[in-house]
Amino acid sequence: GYAKIDHHRHLRKGFPEVIYCQGKTVDQVAQIFHRLCQASQGNILGTRATEEMFGAAKELVPEAEYDPTARMILRRSDSTPRRGMVCVCSAGTADLPVAEEAALTCELMGNRVERIYDTGVAGIHRILDQTEKLARANVVIVVAGMEGALPSVVGGLVDKPVIAVPTSVGYGASFNGLAALLGMLNSCASGVTVVNIDNGFGAGYAAGLINKLAGDKQ
Amino acid sequence: GYAKIDHHRHLRKGFPEVIYCQGKTVDQVAQIFHRLCQASQGNILGTRATEEMFGAAKELVPEAEYDPTARMILRRSDSTPRRGMVCVCSAGTADLPVAEEAALTCELMGNRVERIYDTGVAGIHRILDQTEKLARANVVIVVAGMEGALPSVVGGLVDKPVIAVPTSVGYGASFNGLAALLGMLNSCASGVTVVNIDNGFGAGYAAGLINKLAGDKQ
Amino acid sequence: GYAKIDHHRHLRKGFPEVIYCQGKTVDQVAQIFHRLCQASQGNILGTRATEEMFGAAKELVPEAEYDPTARMILRRSDSTPRRGMVCVCSAGTADLPVAEEAALTCELMGNRVERIYDTGVAGIHRILDQTEKLARANVVIVVAGMEGALPSVVGGLVDKPVIAVPTSVGYGASFNGLAALLGMLNSCASGVTVVNIDNGFGAGYAAGLINKLAGDKQ
Amino acid sequence: GYAKIDHHRHLRKGFPEVIYCQGKTVDQVAQIFHRLCQASQGNILGTRATEEMFGAAKELVPEAEYDPTARMILRRSDSTPRRGMVCVCSAGTADLPVAEEAALTCELMGNRVERIYDTGVAGIHRILDQTEKLARANVVIVVAGMEGALPSVVGGLVDKPVIAVPTSVGYGASFNGLAALLGMLNSCASGVTVVNIDNGFGAGYAAGLINKLAGDKQ
Amino acid sequence: GYAKIDHHRHLRKGFPEVIYCQGKTVDQVAQIFHRLCQASQGNILGTRATEEMFGAAKELVPEAEYDPTARMILRRSDSTPRRGMVCVCSAGTADLPVAEEAALTCELMGNRVERIYDTGVAGIHRILDQTEKLARANVVIVVAGMEGALPSVVGGLVDKPVIAVPTSVGYGASFNGLAALLGMLNSCASGVTVVNIDNGFGAGYAAGLINKLAGDKQ
Amino acid sequence: GYAKIDHHRHLRKGFPEVIYCQGKTVDQVAQIFHRLCQASQGNILGTRATEEMFGAAKELVPEAEYDPTARMILRRSDSTPRRGMVCVCSAGTADLPVAEEAALTCELMGNRVERIYDTGVAGIHRILDQTEKLARANVVIVVAGMEGALPSVVGGLVDKPVIAVPTSVGYGASFNGLAALLGMLNSCASGVTVVNIDNGFGAGYAAGLINKLAGDKQ
Amino acid sequence: GYAKIDHHRHLRKGFPEVIYCQGKTVDQVAQIFHRLCQASQGNILGTRATEEMFGAAKELVPEAEYDPTARMILRRSDSTPRRGMVCVCSAGTADLPVAEEAALTCELMGNRVERIYDTGVAGIHRILDQTEKLARANVVIVVAGMEGALPSVVGGLVDKPVIAVPTSVGYGASFNGLAALLGMLNSCASGVTVVNIDNGFGAGYAAGLINKLAGDKQ
Amino acid sequence: GYAKIDHHRHLRKGFPEVIYCQGKTVDQVAQIFHRLCQASQGNILGTRATEEMFGAAKELVPEAEYDPTARMILRRSDSTPRRGMVCVCSAGTADLPVAEEAALTCELMGNRVERIYDTGVAGIHRILDQTEKLARANVVIVVAGMEGALPSVVGGLVDKPVIAVPTSVGYGASFNGLAALLGMLNSCASGVTVVNIDNGFGAGYAAGLINKLAGDKQ
Ligand SMILES: Nc1ncnc2c1ncn2[C@@H]1O[C@H](COP(=O)(O)O)[C@@H](O)[C@H]1O
Ligand SMILES: Nc1ncnc2c1ncn2[C@@H]1O[C@H](COP(=O)(O)O)[C@@H](O)[C@H]1O
Ligand SMILES: Nc1ncnc2c1ncn2[C@@H]1O[C@H](COP(=O)(O)O)[C@@H](O)[C@H]1O
Ligand SMILES: Nc1ncnc2c1ncn2[C@@H]1O[C@H](COP(=O)(O)O)[C@@H](O)[C@H]1O
Ligand SMILES: [Mg+2]
Ligand SMILES: [Mg+2]
Ligand SMILES: [Mg+2]
Ligand SMILES: [Mg+2]
Ligand SMILES: [Mg+2]
Ligand SMILES: [Mg+2]
Ligand SMILES: [Mg+2]
Ligand SMILES: [Mg+2]
Repeated sequence: GYAKIDHHRHLRKGFPEVIYCQGKTVDQVAQIFHRLCQASQGNILGTRATEEMFGAAKELVPEAEYDPTARMILRRSDSTPRRGMVCVCSAGTADLPVAEEAALTCELMGNRVERIYDTGVAGIHRILDQTEKLARANVVIVVAGMEGALPSVVGGLVDKPVIAVPTSVGYGASFNGLAALLGMLNSCASGVTVVNIDNGFGAGYAAGLINKLAGDKQ
Repeated sequence: GYAKIDHHRHLRKGFPEVIYCQGKTVDQVAQIFHRLCQASQGNILGTRATEEMFGAAKELVPEAEYDPTARMILRRSDSTPRRGMVCVCSAGTADLPVAEEAALTCELMGNRVERIYDTGVAGIHRILDQTEKLARANVVIVVAGMEGALPSVVGGLVDKPVIAVPTSVGYGASFNGLAALLGMLNSCASGVTVVNIDNGFGAGYAAGLINKLAGDKQ
Repeated sequence: GYAKIDHHRHLRKGFPEVIYCQGKTVDQVAQIFHRLCQASQGNILGTRATEEMFGAAKELVPEAEYDPTARMILRRSDSTPRRGMVCVCSAGTADLPVAEEAALTCELMGNRVERIYDTGVAGIHRILDQTEKLARANVVIVVAGMEGALPSVVGGLVDKPVIAVPTSVGYGASFNGLAALLGMLNSCASGVTVVNIDNGFGAGYAAGLINKLAGDKQ
Repeated sequence: GYAKIDHHRHLRKGFPEVIYCQGKTVDQVAQIFHRLCQASQGNILGTRATEEMFGAAKELVPEAEYDPTARMILRRSDSTPRRGMVCVCSAGTADLPVAEEAALTCELMGNRVERIYDTGVAGIHRILDQTEKLARANVVIVVAGMEGALPSVVGGLVDKPVIAVPTSVGYGASFNGLAALLGMLNSCASGVTVVNIDNGFGAGYAAGLINKLAGDKQ
Repeated sequence: GYAKIDHHRHLRKGFPEVIYCQGKTVDQVAQIFHRLCQASQGNILGTRATEEMFGAAKELVPEAEYDPTARMILRRSDSTPRRGMVCVCSAGTADLPVAEEAALTCELMGNRVERIYDTGVAGIHRILDQTEKLARANVVIVVAGMEGALPSVVGGLVDKPVIAVPTSVGYGASFNGLAALLGMLNSCASGVTVVNIDNGFGAGYAAGLINKLAGDKQ
Repeated sequence: GYAKIDHHRHLRKGFPEVIYCQGKTVDQVAQIFHRLCQASQGNILGTRATEEMFGAAKELVPEAEYDPTARMILRRSDSTPRRGMVCVCSAGTADLPVAEEAALTCELMGNRVERIYDTGVAGIHRILDQTEKLARANVVIVVAGMEGALPSVVGGLVDKPVIAVPTSVGYGASFNGLAALLGMLNSCASGVTVVNIDNGFGAGYAAGLINKLAGDKQ
Repeated sequence: GYAKIDHHRHLRKGFPEVIYCQGKTVDQVAQIFHRLCQASQGNILGTRATEEMFGAAKELVPEAEYDPTARMILRRSDSTPRRGMVCVCSAGTADLPVAEEAALTCELMGNRVERIYDTGVAGIHRILDQTEKLARANVVIVVAGMEGALPSVVGGLVDKPVIAVPTSVGYGASFNGLAALLGMLNSCASGVTVVNIDNGFGAGYAAGLINKLAGDKQ
Repeated sequence: GYAKIDHHRHLRKGFPEVIYCQGKTVDQVAQIFHRLCQASQGNILGTRATEEMFGAAKELVPEAEYDPTARMILRRSDSTPRRGMVCVCSAGTADLPVAEEAALTCELMGNRVERIYDTGVAGIHRILDQTEKLARANVVIVVAGMEGALPSVVGGLVDKPVIAVPTSVGYGASFNGLAALLGMLNSCASGVTVVNIDNGFGAGYAAGLINKLAGDKQ
């Protein structure tokens, strides 16, 4: 009995509960993953999962998969065609795990995702070259560490909601992502909202909800 | 000289530039407001404006109005019917200025807005009683100071994006809104994104972009 | 010589000294545990103890037990019936070690404890379903990490003192429990007091003192 | 409009809603105070109230009183004899407003209160001289600014719950009460719980709930 | 008495001591300004000066001037032609006082200064349009508040040293310039160095030293 | 009522209680000052006092004096010759109030004081020129704001204890004296200890105790 | 090459340079220790040294010793009788390494040291029982973690300088010693000065300088 | 595809992209290093590289070298004579890795570098002895941890730009370099600019740009 699984959530939120694996024991993760897979036909996700947790989950759910970059355990089961378009931009190579956590979460919720990676503001032409692709998105996720300036630039280029994800990439006065977080919260571009440091999952989930609202319109 | 008005913004962002009045002189505010009104037929907004700034702006733009709760100067000119639905919830009476800044910004962008005020989590039935109204919104803005717990509760009740606005309401260890900000960034409810402390404008703007995506669907 | 055991404490505080094992060497823990067991007939506790410390203590005190979730060494000796009722609520699975440290401390002081676990605010019905059980408690301990919102909700449901325990569960802007701590200190529910991050022991001890005051009244 | 008064609270919490006046307009305070007085026969309180707010409230509720030290507006109406005993200690003269906010709140909830003021730890005999009085209390509130050390000393002297209230008294590295808050949260005395900086109200309310549990026992 | 004027400084540093007026009395400012004017033939500067300080200084030094935007008192005396080129960029209208403090300091040290104002990153074309002018500078000062992203963009466009000046412009999580400061320290563009929040003087001085090194080369 | 004067202190600490006036009402200050003057023949001090407080105190104690730079009320009564030698160094003109609070406190405790002012590290020869005078002191107080580097330099020049006093002089990232405080705590010179930001009184008092130990030796 | 040993220091400061071993390689420590031993006849110290560093140092300096509690390498060579008296108090068992670093440093500088350990304020009689011993000291070092309240109590008991050493002992809101540091800086007892978190060396050194001033007086 | 190499940078910035290896996988580092070496004839640098990364890079680029102190991988290919002069000063032995990162970066950009190491301010004569050498530099880099006071002293000795690099050397209230960073940002010496904590690379790069401006002038 340590975990009350919230089975109403699928009804209330349109997506089953997602397991946040960090801070749980290997055994707890495997058990909860198993129970969720039995209770739902949809895609099941575990974020911040280690290889070891995946191993234990696979024992109980043989069709489980693992994405090492995004550090996610998944059971893919839905075959619904992906709708609309969400763009995921990232500033640097070290931001990839967070960007992929966002992208995968979003895809598993049934959204089409385009990735635009390694486009930090210090080489501004790299993001300007992508203006057209950005314009086709219903919502843009921007992942960046260090000074976290990319969401402001992207927010100025598009007329769609932008979800900014600060990462803990950096050192010294980045204070594990605080600099990027504060930068994004103070963005002078309008339409930018922010999630927790390294919270690729949260950004992907929120972007999925927004893209779903746009529906088949685009 | 001092202000390069960004006239392309209306094209790029679908809404003219909004004046952030704080930190500008009374004269600067009046001049920029005037120039924006001449350059655009749409609604024109100035946020964080004092009565004195409004007085100076009205000299140059006689049809200017002032909303003292939201502390906004506005020239309303569009008569387009409002689309969709955005819900603005707030936790306490002292959060009203920020909630109204959000609501007014959103309305002036052409969105229908419903207000649900004074529903702090310590009397949880007050927000639960509004579940049906919340369910009709395309996006919900939640404004709260002190511990900033309301967005987590609302985020658990709806399957739509929630934009959380921490306010500087509180004292002591609220650290001028830091407690509410951190609480919202760490929300365990999915679908919640966050804007800067007291940034009603930013929340209203982002909510407007999202509601616009939903279009006539609902 | 290194530790002056405070034998007056049992008289002054109604409970023998509890060993805070972290920061002590394995040998120091074992020695102090042994001396306390010899000096008192009551229950003896060591908190934040490793398995290795337990091993060394058991050499000297064969009847010593270890609770791996609560990370506590104990020698149970009293058989007094448990009095009154303390409720321990926790928000998530990762909060269990702290919740159990609170519950066990409280039980060993002679209090009856009810556990209500995994009831985070993002699925609000989970805690609302427990309203009746909560109403029977003399005091409620609420353990939560991340945004730490649960104490505000519980504080609004009961008319008894609530002791809030922030945990270091979370990442990024949770800043190792700071977000939860600030949230709880700013709770808009009255009757809520707070202990240090992860201080299950302190919450259990204070709750025990309060429950003892209620005595056989309930 | 702006304020949904929570009339159920008296039933749920055993005490009517208390108005937190800071951040409300003079007019809002007077109106809410008036409505609460009409809706309840009990004592009605407004905390953090200015003289001006009191003036406006007195217009509508002639029997309203004002306590300038505690900065509270009150309508006293209950004549129930005070029960049990709560001790309120404070460290220095500048802590008086917070100590009185605690004491008055507690008294108006029907509790007997003893004040022990100006007993900072640098003259330790001052608090030691009060040991007997402290021993008679069911719960002790300790109010202190600067290094906030008094609750640790008091917590070591009594076997009852201690509620620590850090104040913003101090300068420099007191950081407006942060030093006292952190000191109290890290108290090495067991049985100590903490409220927000300057939150005399919260301490008085929680102490009242605890003292009520002790009932006629003492 | 109170101030040991450092007359060697002109020799050591190539520029006389500059008075930092904040925190000095009106009388102290006037006296020190007067003494410096008597001791040197060069330009004399007082930063962070009020109009009242200027009044008192003018009594003693009739040729003193005041720049209200930069809040500086000056005695201009050198007529040396200005050398090289320093560019001063600023992000928003409210950053003007700091930008002008930088520009004036730099000019009075004998450097040619070009101003590029109101070019925040949310309208990126505004700074891109100035690429040619930027390319002609020996050193670029970039002044920005809020998220402080402009130095990263400018640093990516030029191959000259960039001095970033965070300003206290903003609110909420800008924490009086901390967000901009951290952003700039973490800039992913190389060649960027940073001065204190609002330290226009320091940036202007350092830029002047750098521009002087370039000499007549350009 | 409100203040338990600690008359034992003169015996225990060799100096009567000193009144910290900030946070007390004008009336409280005057009353406490009066009572202390009646109870003791020695020098009586009130720190952080306004002119208005002095006015009220003088009504009751006609021989009271006021030092506007140090912001102290005093009644001088002892005529004991001053012993030993304490040096008080300060970095800049704006640090004078804190330096004088230290110097006056120290003098009134019966110590001989030498002042060395305006010797900031950016003109290092200014402090090097004073090496001989520094060498004659039993203890050196060093007062500095901004980066607070002076105590490290002085600590390297003398073989006596150095008491460092950070001041709140500065702006931006000085964070009201935090930068200077941290600098001093991390001083690489040995023999340096630190007091609270702006705590001239504390430094003067501790230096007085140390100088008294040296006695007539020098 | 990498280390300029400051041989003048013995002359200037009366004690040879002390090696701060942390952050140096094993080889660097051994070499510098060796060179200092060759250059001086006095006691030589290395602080924050690992066993491995000691091993390497012993190869070069066979008479080197190691104190594992204080984590110091030493070469004892002076046989001067110890002078005066310094008291070292500590609050808890986990504070021992820092207390011993202070005590050993002080002894090696030629001072007599008395240890009073495990006397935390929550059992106040433990320190009160030592009042007489404290009264004999010329200076008292007080080492404490968690809330750091002990220096305030000790400072109120003695009329000698007190040097407070915050330790990083604690968890959660102790923030690695920040709570204790702030508490000590805000001590309401006069005569207390503070050193860096865990800086036993600095406290021992400063106490040694002070005790030396007292000389044979006591 | 994870890394868009910015080949324009060499043209824009006069130096090819530098790889920041931390946060990248061993394989990513090796691949990017290889591609940069193929695309450019100039010197290629990887900072914050482990020995393991170097091993992998050497497989692909046999002429790669590794500097273990500076933790850099390099391919040296240019033989242009070094121009001008940059001085790199450091305060302590533990600052060497950062100082060497700065020095090597600067040298590989074609600048002549002079090292002045182990000259902390507590032995001020060590830096004063180097005044002549400092005077010959076009720009001075000053690397220091703990209180970070050295740049203020150096800034007062030279009339050239000074770039200050705070390091994370220290403990306790150094807060991983925050104390040094704040100290440097608040330097009272003019001409000082600052880079991120431990950012030797950034300082070396900016110094290189400045020295290049001076050209053959000196
Ligand atoms: N209250 C507000 N908070 C944050 N951003 C705002 C606010 N009001 C306006 N803005 C933004 O600030 C920009 C204008 O800034 P400025 O050019 O300084 O007037 C607008 O385009 C908005 O994006
Ligand atoms: N987990 C814990 N957290 C906080 N305080 C504790 C904990 N466990 C024990 N203590 C307290 O620490 C005291 C013992 O400290 P010590 O003498 O260092 O073992 C006990 O009397 C308790 O008051
Ligand atoms: N001084 C105070 N500090 C903290 N909370 C307070 C204070 N006074 C009243 N409250 C709480 O604030 C609630 C009312 O808030 P509001 O509806 O904004 O007036 C009350 O029910 C109390 O729980
Ligand atoms: N544990 C310590 N904490 C702080 N400073 C120390 C410590 N040990 C030695 N020191 C100081 O560091 C200086 C030597 O530093 P270094 O040259 O880096 O070995 C000594 O002269 C002491 O002043
Ligand atoms: Mg890249
Ligand atoms: Mg309310
Ligand atoms: Mg769960
Ligand atoms: Mg007093
Ligand atoms: Mg603008
Ligand atoms: Mg000066
Ligand atoms: Mg103990
Ligand atoms: Mg050294």
